[in-house]
Amino acid sequence: MTLDLHADPVDLTRELVDIQSVSGEEQAIADAVQAALTEQADHLEVVRNGQAVLARTNLGRPSRVVLAGHLDTVPVNGNLPLRREGDVLHGLGTVDMKGGDAVFLHLAATVREPRHDLTFVFYDCEEIEATRNGLGRIERELPGWLAGDLAIVGEPSNAVIEAGCQGTMRIELPTTGTRAHTARAWMGVNAIHALAEPMRRLAEYRPRDVEIDGLTYREGLQAVRVSGGVAGNVVPDEAVLTVNFRFAPDRSAEEAEQHLREVFDGFELSVVDLSPGALPGLSAPAAAELVQAAGGKAAAKLGWTDVARFAALGMPAVNFGPGDPTLAHTRQEHVHAAEIRQVAGVLREFLTAL
Amino acid sequence: MTLDLHADPVDLTRELVDIQSVSGEEQAIADAVQAALTEQADHLEVVRNGQAVLARTNLGRPSRVVLAGHLDTVPVNGNLPLRREGDVLHGLGTVDMKGGDAVFLHLAATVREPRHDLTFVFYDCEEIEATRNGLGRIERELPGWLAGDLAIVGEPSNAVIEAGCQGTMRIELPTTGTRAHTARAWMGVNAIHALAEPMRRLAEYRPRDVEIDGLTYREGLQAVRVSGGVAGNVVPDEAVLTVNFRFAPDRSAEEAEQHLREVFDGFELSVVDLSPGALPGLSAPAAAELVQAAGGKAAAKLGWTDVARFAALGMPAVNFGPGDPTLAHTRQEHVHAAEIRQVAGVLREFLTAL
Repeated sequence: MTLDLHADPVDLTRELVDIQSVSGEEQAIADAVQAALTEQADHLEVVRNGQAVLARTNLGRPSRVVLAGHLDTVPVNGNLPLRREGDVLHGLGTVDMKGGDAVFLHLAATVREPRHDLTFVFYDCEEIEATRNGLGRIERELPGWLAGDLAIVGEPSNAVIEAGCQGTMRIELPTTGTRAHTARAWMGVNAIHALAEPMRRLAEYRPRDVEIDGLTYREGLQAVRVSGGVAGNVVPDEAVLTVNFRFAPDRSAEEAEQHLREVFDGFELSVVDLSPGALPGLSAPAAAELVQAAGGKAAAKLGWTDVARFAALGMPAVNFGPGDPTLAHTRQEHVHAAEIRQVAGVLREFLTAL
Repeated sequence: MTLDLHADPVDLTRELVDIQSVSGEEQAIADAVQAALTEQADHLEVVRNGQAVLARTNLGRPSRVVLAGHLDTVPVNGNLPLRREGDVLHGLGTVDMKGGDAVFLHLAATVREPRHDLTFVFYDCEEIEATRNGLGRIERELPGWLAGDLAIVGEPSNAVIEAGCQGTMRIELPTTGTRAHTARAWMGVNAIHALAEPMRRLAEYRPRDVEIDGLTYREGLQAVRVSGGVAGNVVPDEAVLTVNFRFAPDRSAEEAEQHLREVFDGFELSVVDLSPGALPGLSAPAAAELVQAAGGKAAAKLGWTDVARFAALGMPAVNFGPGDPTLAHTRQEHVHAAEIRQVAGVLREFLTAL
């Protein structure tokens, strides 16, 4: 089967959904994407990298836009093959993110005279551990292919431009004590009791709302795990509180860590996971044009996406794709055909209109 | 091999230790005890019940003392066979509680004219779940055999009379919330944060010291487990705090529960485990005589033992046995021969002197 990139991107979404592509098993979909893009070799340079496929124009335009989408999905959950009900496509990947992929593939084939040079990146292993992320591999192996003046990541955003992203940091706050039989509790020191004070600070913490470039980022500081205990009759000597901090992109990673050390002053803590945020960068010319094409509206991205990888390269980067992100990774994933067409229309105008 | 009940109880302890008797595997030791007691049938009535052996005098004395010891041990942990170093016996059961068993067996054979009628109870499955406890089975099947005016349980007590015992209650305090992605934490309610207030009350709780019959019971309220958490990026909707309350025997089980409901007022809690305490009862005549024979000193029992089963039958009951109870269930279990002989001497005086 060869994908028809000139077809309605809604039909193309259907075809992509029915090529199963759980993370690590992207060969079939990457082969299909490569074959289809290679048919456009008259205006696109195409390369394969592992299970990723990249294509770009080389028109000598003064600016370049990178459009990136991952080809993999979370595991199948009784939601394949695709099922269409009227205007709605149901199934794994309809939201996250084969609708966005379909739009980008359609534009790759049909926008032959773009105002910016274009780079398309279809990559693997976004839904699993960051070390296997295909975009990270491309950054290491083909760094020139990610350069540009604006990156558009086609993750679901309800067809709204979502700019920047918040950082995320996970810390562990361990407490220690001295084990003893609970019948002689005064001989011990209870490590769970020692969590009472940091938990009080957490429960009383008031997160900031931060406005940047007209967008509002809402921070959050949340316990995500607590554990401790030895046996029903033992004063426990170890307990751990795990906290997730979502921080606005006006804080660097170092500043975010410093903030937590102040909040939990007097307690030991260690950072176990960290992804810096990304400033929205909507004042850059290409980004401002895109917002204009989308009707002048943009929102703050609160979750963390691969947008931050482009931001780390110094590029303004946005999420823009069809589908409700809160349906991602649920069995009920579904997308309205109209949203797919809307995103395709906005991007076509952005890439071609004067 | 036949146990020689007339030998030094230290030698008898050595013989008992080397008959392995992990809970549920007491047949060999029960057979040996039964055979040895049956040799004393001229002055003892002997019955077998499962892997328990009971013996009693029927001398028509106005009062009766019950001496009870369990025959089982916790699992072997590289601490068998017995190893003797000078005056110290090392090995599984030296403390918990074959030293006490040896003393009782020795007295059963050698105290032929006691001042009180005597009942000896050697039973199984004390170290495992309460439903399998041999003493509980005897209570159901042979209740007349447990009646008396004083019960002495030979659990290790450093050769000090330990009277009564504290009650123990375990409660679970669950909190609930609403799950959400931590990037949109305001859409959720964090169940771990909801534990901050009960944990504050726990950390600030000041337990009572209670004096009863001249003995001091020290209460304790301790978190023994805390758990909650769904994933590193999810506001958790469930958490549970488990608390162990050790309460002095002036509180009934109902009063202890009521107290916890007041401490944690405003929070749901459920009782998951409960054993009432036992008042020391040292004012009863036989108990007072025993304390006198032991030099006039007694201490409060803080842990929970089968003493409470006798107390529930309305009898004063004490722990009195050789060995340091803090060594029980450790690989390093060991007992001094002198303590075994000391306990035997005190009991012989109590049972025979005018």
